[in-house]
Amino acid sequence: MDQPQERKSLFPSDTDVTAPAEPAFASHRCTRITPVLNRVGDKWSMQIVMALGSGPRRFSELKREIDGISQRMLTLSLRGLERDGLISRHVTPTIPPRVDYQLTDLGLSLREPVRALGAWASEHIGCIRAAQESFDAREG
Amino acid sequence: MDQPQERKSLFPSDTDVTAPAEPAFASHRCTRITPVLNRVGDKWSMQIVMALGSGPRRFSELKREIDGISQRMLTLSLRGLERDGLISRHVTPTIPPRVDYQLTDLGLSLREPVRALGAWASEHIGCIRAAQESFDAREG
Repeated sequence: MDQPQERKSLFPSDTDVTAPAEPAFASHRCTRITPVLNRVGDKWSMQIVMALGSGPRRFSELKREIDGISQRMLTLSLRGLERDGLISRHVTPTIPPRVDYQLTDLGLSLREPVRALGAWASEHIGCIRAAQESFDAREG
Repeated sequence: MDQPQERKSLFPSDTDVTAPAEPAFASHRCTRITPVLNRVGDKWSMQIVMALGSGPRRFSELKREIDGISQRMLTLSLRGLERDGLISRHVTPTIPPRVDYQLTDLGLSLREPVRALGAWASEHIGCIRAAQESFDAREG
């Protein structure tokens, strides 16, 4: 039986951040947010959101700016982000057609948490690399 | 030729957040942080970090708390997080052995950005679902 009132979200809202630590039980919200985390947490989607954070981009511009992304992954990620309402796609009917992508208001609101996670990754990459080398030497 | 000084990170640090928007070119840092984003941005890893945020957990406790995670994905995610230095693993030699996982200091520092991204997802899930339905009705 569902008893949502007795469960805690793994992701408390801002107002909960000073609350004492409590067991974090999986909740309905967690179940439902898992696919959203899968999208917004995706490394390519995060980099697309950051690139579009400074203005609209064409496909080829995104491809160039996001190092290592394949044509296919960029296509799939853009389509996923559009489906989620995070970016919009504008087609100018030239020959060949020109397609620009830009963040929606919803996408703009995602910039800050994504930036914070990316900044954390940038800041701690040295520690992580060191930990990986140590782990591989120990377990490999 | 490498000219890192002419490139901008897609993920500026906190101090850059008020800087005017500039083209976000892929940089060395982006190339290197892509695998880190892949790990810390992973939906299961984020939920494990949040669950361990309130204290050490046994495997079976994590399995129960993180709704929908398979035994295999939990095993793989825990191993990846341990390799990255984000969690530590403590084996108590009972029969059967008891294994506890907990966040390292590095893992603890990841809680806040992960919480912010999860809170964003929780807050905007309704908009995202609506956008998906509208997209599927239009394009499906």
